[in-house]
Amino acid sequence: MKKMNTSPISGMLELLPNEQAVFNKYKREVEEVFHRHGFLAIETPTIEREEILFAKAGGETEKQIYKVIKTEETTESADQALRFDHTVPLARYVTEHESDLSFPFRVTQTGKNYRGERAQKGRFREFYQLDIDVVGRNELAIEYDIDVILTLVEALGKMGLEKVLVRVSNRKILGGFIEEMNLQEVSNEIFSIIDHAEKVPAEKTREKLVALEIGEEKIERLLDFIEISGDKNRVEEKLRAFMFENQKFNEGVDELSRVLGLLETQLSSEKVIADMKIVRGLDYYTGTVFETILPEYDKIGSICSGGRYENLTELYSDQKFPGVGGSIGLTRLFSVLRDLQLVEPEAKKPVDFAIIPVDEEAREASFQFAEKLRKTGNSVDLVLSDKKFVDKLKYAAKVAKFGIVLGENELKSGKIMKKDFSTGEETELSVI
Amino acid sequence: MKKMNTSPISGMLELLPNEQAVFNKYKREVEEVFHRHGFLAIETPTIEREEILFAKAGGETEKQIYKVIKTEETTESADQALRFDHTVPLARYVTEHESDLSFPFRVTQTGKNYRGERAQKGRFREFYQLDIDVVGRNELAIEYDIDVILTLVEALGKMGLEKVLVRVSNRKILGGFIEEMNLQEVSNEIFSIIDHAEKVPAEKTREKLVALEIGEEKIERLLDFIEISGDKNRVEEKLRAFMFENQKFNEGVDELSRVLGLLETQLSSEKVIADMKIVRGLDYYTGTVFETILPEYDKIGSICSGGRYENLTELYSDQKFPGVGGSIGLTRLFSVLRDLQLVEPEAKKPVDFAIIPVDEEAREASFQFAEKLRKTGNSVDLVLSDKKFVDKLKYAAKVAKFGIVLGENELKSGKIMKKDFSTGEETELSVI
Repeated sequence: MKKMNTSPISGMLELLPNEQAVFNKYKREVEEVFHRHGFLAIETPTIEREEILFAKAGGETEKQIYKVIKTEETTESADQALRFDHTVPLARYVTEHESDLSFPFRVTQTGKNYRGERAQKGRFREFYQLDIDVVGRNELAIEYDIDVILTLVEALGKMGLEKVLVRVSNRKILGGFIEEMNLQEVSNEIFSIIDHAEKVPAEKTREKLVALEIGEEKIERLLDFIEISGDKNRVEEKLRAFMFENQKFNEGVDELSRVLGLLETQLSSEKVIADMKIVRGLDYYTGTVFETILPEYDKIGSICSGGRYENLTELYSDQKFPGVGGSIGLTRLFSVLRDLQLVEPEAKKPVDFAIIPVDEEAREASFQFAEKLRKTGNSVDLVLSDKKFVDKLKYAAKVAKFGIVLGENELKSGKIMKKDFSTGEETELSVI
Repeated sequence: MKKMNTSPISGMLELLPNEQAVFNKYKREVEEVFHRHGFLAIETPTIEREEILFAKAGGETEKQIYKVIKTEETTESADQALRFDHTVPLARYVTEHESDLSFPFRVTQTGKNYRGERAQKGRFREFYQLDIDVVGRNELAIEYDIDVILTLVEALGKMGLEKVLVRVSNRKILGGFIEEMNLQEVSNEIFSIIDHAEKVPAEKTREKLVALEIGEEKIERLLDFIEISGDKNRVEEKLRAFMFENQKFNEGVDELSRVLGLLETQLSSEKVIADMKIVRGLDYYTGTVFETILPEYDKIGSICSGGRYENLTELYSDQKFPGVGGSIGLTRLFSVLRDLQLVEPEAKKPVDFAIIPVDEEAREASFQFAEKLRKTGNSVDLVLSDKKFVDKLKYAAKVAKFGIVLGENELKSGKIMKKDFSTGEETELSVI
């Protein structure tokens, strides 16, 4: 019987070993893709000074920050809190270490972040984010936007997610559109309303726009605008047809056209689309923005998103570091895939061999024998317990793919059998 | 110029990418050894309810716990804090999930823990601990103690630490010795004094014993006792010579003898020693205890320690789960090895190839070309920036082992040269 509540805190994912093995495999494979694309891993502390975090946080995020208090007095006087994303620590890191880094700095962070969100299904308070960023000094070519997106799509593929759709836009386009309509005063509100448009019924979006008191005509034009989507040629044609002379708008169209053009040559056409509904709400992005969905499971929403930002470090440094980045929210993605029964059912038996020594002498010999098997890359469990043989065999069949019984006969003859627990078949072990 | 203090919080390790690459390599290799020894990875949340943490913490540890406060109201009412080790969360995990686990449960946790220690060199407030444990239900054979120690020694070897010395004892021996001398009332104090004996001058240890008012004769006997060390035969002989009939003492000697006997057959003799100074202070261990030092750098102190505990979950459950475990404190160990200039100097260039496309057309072609190189396992950086060619070459030479320039000629002829940045040599690339 339990003496107290031993469940993990709600909103924090805790897995059984066989699920954890799959989770770790996904994480490792994504990290491997990032590595092969030349992204350098860094790791910043989970705890930051509040002035660093609050400089960039705002609104909802600030309310969700976990503050940290040490019970004993220390010399460290600054208030501290847990980081809520990788971008703020990256901005601090680049400011602090810029003289030791090479730019463009290709960087990846794959740690855990913390937000005290209200507990609900699919929302996590502790979650892994697998981030990549390319950070330039003063300038950064637009082609890096493509590089980041291609890397993330490849990483999703490694997790078995081949059927993805990357929805791309550029914030300058909606920004310019808003300028053309003289709606700059409610720009933030419009970005936020459009960002939520797919999560609420259509009439709700219209209501929210009506509440801005911008007039029926502009509402119609906005609602028409966000319906624009399709491949590069189709979308570029529609956007050019506005014939705006607005510089921001046209820059946005040029950039989007460049990004889409290259993406369409690198990815199969059903994997990428331009979509004016993609705006990334109140985020700090200033150019390219993207979200990635699983078209077969579009209710999940975006599983991987990111974009281009004008200046990573503006709050921390006088220098300018433009960047582009993206992130896979692994904890939420894993949890969703598990609910859909889409996580690989393998790894239920993470151990290759379980060796059961039958007596004292065999027990001693089993240590060396296990090492031999391990040297060829196998994972090997030594069943050393004092339990009855039948219980040891039961245990072995639960954790391992193959079982090996070691006794006097086996040690003398050197003839050692392995039992495949999935088929019951016994074959002689040839490796040793 | 910096606009605010962007250094990491003191006591938290933050590495540059080339150091981080070595750190991550060490961690991965240790995890790989644990995996091959059949230990299953789990991960518990970093944040736990305080009642879980405080149930087991005590004294100094409790004062060092980081409390966590969410700024916004939630339904979660319990006080929360950051975990200070992996053992408490493991106890909670085993209690919570015991019906889904197979026992003996071989488990590994390799995450970060938090203690608000006073800042000083070699002390970290955020630190990785690479733990393994074997947890039995009701019982657990003594041979698992050996299994855990051998696994940890192999893991240290993978980090290049071949010259290690494992110092082993058994808490029952000192416990029985204390009983024989009728010193049970100051048992905790004696364990703590002996645990610190090597960190303070000899007269300080004597002073502390004198302060216990146990009489000169018992002090001498204790001081003699802790000098006992050596191989199995020598130590067993000395301990048996006491001729105690104390059950605890003799059980301890039997267990130590069994553990040492097997360790001596599996490890070279200079790697293992019995040593009565090893007692692990106020820890929860009840049987085997061990610490590991680097004899060439013994001032570092123990780099890997652990032991056997009677009942992992006693504070959380009515069931009994005896276990044995050990831990490598990777953050401190890495920092110490770095100061001694013992970390591998490799990985200064974590990227294999940097591709520099010279014009627009080559830039587009470079994406596919990079993918080809990556398919054969290389890490490839695409230098897409708009900078001058010479700056791009400089960047490439900093991050990558080889550089490839892609232009019209190369694309037409298919003859592509790679330049080895360390020698300056250019050779034709044959892979593609």
